Amino acid sequence: MQTTLQALRDEVEQALAGLGEPEASTPQALGMMQGFPPRPDAMVRFEQDRMLAAPWNRWTFSHVRELMPTAGVWRGGGTPSALPAQPQTASSGPRATGVLPRLDLAQVRYTDLFGRPADCAQMVRQAYTDGLLVLHRGHVVHEQYAGELRPERQHLAMSITKSVFGMVVAQLAHEGVLSLTATAGHYVPELAGSAWEDATLQHLLDMTVGVAYSEDYNNAEAEVWRHALAGRMRPRPPGYAGPMGFYASLRTFRKQGEHGAAFEYKTVNSEVLAWVAARATGIRMADLVSQKLWQPLGAEHDAYVMLDDHGAEAGGGGLCTSLRDLARFGEAMRCDGHFGGRQVLAPEVVAEVRRGGDRLLFANSPAYTLIEGGSYHNQWWLTHNAHGAFMGRGIFGQNLYIDPAAEMVVARYAAHPLAASRYTDPLTLPGLHALALALRDG
Amino acid sequence: MQTTLQALRDEVEQALAGLGEPEASTPQALGMMQGFPPRPDAMVRFEQDRMLAAPWNRWTFSHVRELMPTAGVWRGGGTPSALPAQPQTASSGPRATGVLPRLDLAQVRYTDLFGRPADCAQMVRQAYTDGLLVLHRGHVVHEQYAGELRPERQHLAMSITKSVFGMVVAQLAHEGVLSLTATAGHYVPELAGSAWEDATLQHLLDMTVGVAYSEDYNNAEAEVWRHALAGRMRPRPPGYAGPMGFYASLRTFRKQGEHGAAFEYKTVNSEVLAWVAARATGIRMADLVSQKLWQPLGAEHDAYVMLDDHGAEAGGGGLCTSLRDLARFGEAMRCDGHFGGRQVLAPEVVAEVRRGGDRLLFANSPAYTLIEGGSYHNQWWLTHNAHGAFMGRGIFGQNLYIDPAAEMVVARYAAHPLAASRYTDPLTLPGLHALALALRDG
Repeated sequence: MQTTLQALRDEVEQALAGLGEPEASTPQALGMMQGFPPRPDAMVRFEQDRMLAAPWNRWTFSHVRELMPTAGVWRGGGTPSALPAQPQTASSGPRATGVLPRLDLAQVRYTDLFGRPADCAQMVRQAYTDGLLVLHRGHVVHEQYAGELRPERQHLAMSITKSVFGMVVAQLAHEGVLSLTATAGHYVPELAGSAWEDATLQHLLDMTVGVAYSEDYNNAEAEVWRHALAGRMRPRPPGYAGPMGFYASLRTFRKQGEHGAAFEYKTVNSEVLAWVAARATGIRMADLVSQKLWQPLGAEHDAYVMLDDHGAEAGGGGLCTSLRDLARFGEAMRCDGHFGGRQVLAPEVVAEVRRGGDRLLFANSPAYTLIEGGSYHNQWWLTHNAHGAFMGRGIFGQNLYIDPAAEMVVARYAAHPLAASRYTDPLTLPGLHALALALRDG
Repeated sequence: MQTTLQALRDEVEQALAGLGEPEASTPQALGMMQGFPPRPDAMVRFEQDRMLAAPWNRWTFSHVRELMPTAGVWRGGGTPSALPAQPQTASSGPRATGVLPRLDLAQVRYTDLFGRPADCAQMVRQAYTDGLLVLHRGHVVHEQYAGELRPERQHLAMSITKSVFGMVVAQLAHEGVLSLTATAGHYVPELAGSAWEDATLQHLLDMTVGVAYSEDYNNAEAEVWRHALAGRMRPRPPGYAGPMGFYASLRTFRKQGEHGAAFEYKTVNSEVLAWVAARATGIRMADLVSQKLWQPLGAEHDAYVMLDDHGAEAGGGGLCTSLRDLARFGEAMRCDGHFGGRQVLAPEVVAEVRRGGDRLLFANSPAYTLIEGGSYHNQWWLTHNAHGAFMGRGIFGQNLYIDPAAEMVVARYAAHPLAASRYTDPLTLPGLHALALALRDG
């Protein structure tokens, strides 16, 4: 284990050494998409395939709808629910940026996963954070924005999408609309012959489907990229002859091994789930999220979902929300589904997440050594630490961290130059726990 | 004149005779974009160039953001302003559709512009109406939705965009940020050599720019289509070699004749205005509309603006709003810029619109014989009738009609199969006046 960690540290430190300063990568610093029109060398267009590439992602993640088709998630018509700030001391007041001076992140010190001294301000900075919101006992104790993010602007949630959509699926199951023991093929007969024909929804929710599909972002030949082209998440090259649209692509992936035998994190499972939910209800996920979450939460802003060019939703990573609404959702998860005077999700649905998944399968999965002792269940990551912390996570630094024992929720949107979470986890995971300890003992 | 009207009637009746029943063209009736995925023959994709084509436009006009890039117009964070229903009589109550039974449109009878008997229910139906909202003295006396429109969904406003953006420009001028007597070339130097180099903003606002550009939708070679390709409002054919983006396209149009000499309605003028406003303020029109209109109006829903693939806004016809927020804006125009307890627009800005434009130039423009005696000013259409009615208008049946004398505002979104307003005006213009008379005397 020590050897593995050392090798990981070497790889991570080498990768990070080549990166510029976070402050130098902001759209403002680079003139990116500034002006009418922007400078040609500072332009971000879909056809340039800059959605994920640094430094462009510091602009794209806060402007997804300006590059591609999206479906709106309506917040509902009422007054937004309260997200109250921590009561101010006499000597302090909110600043224009919304940063409350009460919590000094630089004072929260800890040791990172590689044994190096760190503090939470460093954690925020080195994640190329676009926005950070910390709730303690339901009060906002810290809120900051950088780069292109604004309180009212939606940021790409990446795979936190899975955690949000997962709760819609679990809630639908709780209501009897879906059965988690039924197969995906039962709901979507076109999946016959694919890996999902005989996989249960629970297999999908827990990422234990046996499917020939690689999510290695560093491998240009990996199926994750082929699938992205099918869904036009990236521009298709001239003469492209692959599947057109997510649904057509999903039907092409074949079974490999047995379902339930291994934890293998694969975004296509979540896309099949979104398809199942839409097919079973007749309502697409964007509208289900509105009905089941955003409206009852009293969301402050509409959210939206990326669409392929055939109208299908990017169910594994295409949700974009405001930071504040992501925090509201996290607070509902902390409070057994209750938020703003409403029971948004059934308590059983949240309790089931916190029960966790199969820790042995998780331990056997080589990619997640940094979440030691954890598990994955219903599209959430469980730490199984002493605080019972669990999280939604997305590549490039997205995080929704819920610490029940410390009564803390942290929502972070970021645009790190590198996709994989191992480049932010070493600082982030112990940093969020340190923050929880500081607030708990505060 | 009588001959002209008869010839127009013949052409209009012949064109309309070939159309199907409005009820048969709804997405529900045709299965259009229903299901996951929709039937292949009922699919609407951007690449199919179905945005404007009937019957597809009954779906596309309510789902623009699902087909192309858009910029959000934030409604602001507060409680939506009231849009109160007319107090109910004991025997009536609002139905699920939001239709109040008080106003029976079929009982409002009149003679259309071609001398045929008509009623307002017929006017609504034959316009392929997606949504109609009637305000009288600030109360909702009628609200209905059809096809794909919902109260919370945004519909393409087409050229009502001009009336909204025009008020932003006029308000900026009132505040001293812009000068309407300055030239567009003064604000956007790249327009040197184009028609707009020496045209004043007032020329643009009044559509009296001399520019070689045809807006004849029935002519496939007209510049309006070339410009649409440049802005990727339509899919570009393989090997497309024209300008890329609205801004690049606008620079190519040359002067023809003298500015101020004729009223010639050309959407490119409005796009130049949006460019000027963005350049002068450093804020794009979507955000200016949010700051100057949607936030102070207390809008109920976000709006949005279509973008080209270089991030430039479709300033002449790309705004999409909810019907209710369009009505709020109209009510502010009726009430001298005042709405919901706020002075949204300076009274002088609204008074200037109502003063009207050059009626002689308007009378000399052959295309608008159906608005006899009217004028065009600051991107609004003035009837100069006894009620002082004025309106925003858009192709395919969009209308925002304000009748000060009758204290009436009508917002209508529609998806007529034919673009030109002459196919809806014969019923609509006298119909709205008849409705005003009915409410005034009612």
